[in-house]
Amino acid sequence: MWGSVAPEASRRLLLAAVDSFAELGYHGTSTRHIAAGAGMSAGALYVHYKTKADLLFQIALTVHRSVLATLREAVATGSAPPARVRALMYAFSSWHATHYKAARVIQNEMAALGPEHAAEIAVFRRETRELVLSEVRAGAASGDFDVADLAATARALSSLAIDVCRWYRPEGPRTPDEIGALNAHLAMRVLGAAAP
Amino acid sequence: MWGSVAPEASRRLLLAAVDSFAELGYHGTSTRHIAAGAGMSAGALYVHYKTKADLLFQIALTVHRSVLATLREAVATGSAPPARVRALMYAFSSWHATHYKAARVIQNEMAALGPEHAAEIAVFRRETRELVLSEVRAGAASGDFDVADLAATARALSSLAIDVCRWYRPEGPRTPDEIGALNAHLAMRVLGAAAP
Repeated sequence: MWGSVAPEASRRLLLAAVDSFAELGYHGTSTRHIAAGAGMSAGALYVHYKTKADLLFQIALTVHRSVLATLREAVATGSAPPARVRALMYAFSSWHATHYKAARVIQNEMAALGPEHAAEIAVFRRETRELVLSEVRAGAASGDFDVADLAATARALSSLAIDVCRWYRPEGPRTPDEIGALNAHLAMRVLGAAAP
Repeated sequence: MWGSVAPEASRRLLLAAVDSFAELGYHGTSTRHIAAGAGMSAGALYVHYKTKADLLFQIALTVHRSVLATLREAVATGSAPPARVRALMYAFSSWHATHYKAARVIQNEMAALGPEHAAEIAVFRRETRELVLSEVRAGAASGDFDVADLAATARALSSLAIDVCRWYRPEGPRTPDEIGALNAHLAMRVLGAAAP
């Protein structure tokens, strides 16, 4: 996910910011603390990011772009709705385990984004929500799923996947792959899909 | 939930602290800001709470006690496992809608609790997890549920309920009751329970 951030010093600063925000919260973090975490001076930080708000926004952009690209790639691997939603839930859930720290920072600090940044991020969140909803709707239309409330059920699938970042710990008993596989299975049950 | 906090000035300060932490984060909030929110002086705040950490801990205690009491009361209304789990999921989910702001503050700021406070809160979280797990286990043992991985499936039910506090907004299209009813229904599907 971070490979798209260049040059390397910018990337290093974003990763240090994720660590600082996770430890001290956005409002409790200084740019000096972030720069120190990246082994740089505060002056060097300002070459790459004008403000602490810029750092939070760039993290949010990187996270949301990565989620949306991951989900689009996942659904494209299947043709029938059940296969597409299984792939989507596997990818959505394992992503939130693998990237739990950055995901948790963003979920916790959404309110700290300024209005313009929040509006840009809202576009990604809406597209992600609509992607999940359109896959659920397609399976209901084809008769593969048995769903009364499409929007609320799609929301429940997102809850299952996103909440992983809240409780996941790398030292826990299950790998991101196992969590992805379980949630793909549970999604089929939530949707009332016939067993494959 | 807040009715148990007395005297009234203590309660007013906790509610002001929830608002401040939700707006500025724990680390970004001053006790002065909290006192002002409660219409009190910083000196008056110190009569009730020694530190900002005390306020966070009292909020966490109030929240976790309320959740655990709500779940225990809910399961006691049913005898067969499906009825007990439906009641549990209804209560767990609607609680997280009704109390979304305090719940979100606590989920976001868990890392800000000091080690002793965190250990006390961990007891409540473990009891809550074990309550959900024991209900799922009882239904699997009775043959009402069809569950391969008891712990991970119980975790998924908690995810569905807890994640409500992340996305719920009072101005949204669904009431806490409707969210509780939907999640009770989806829980039966997740558990592979026969339709009632």
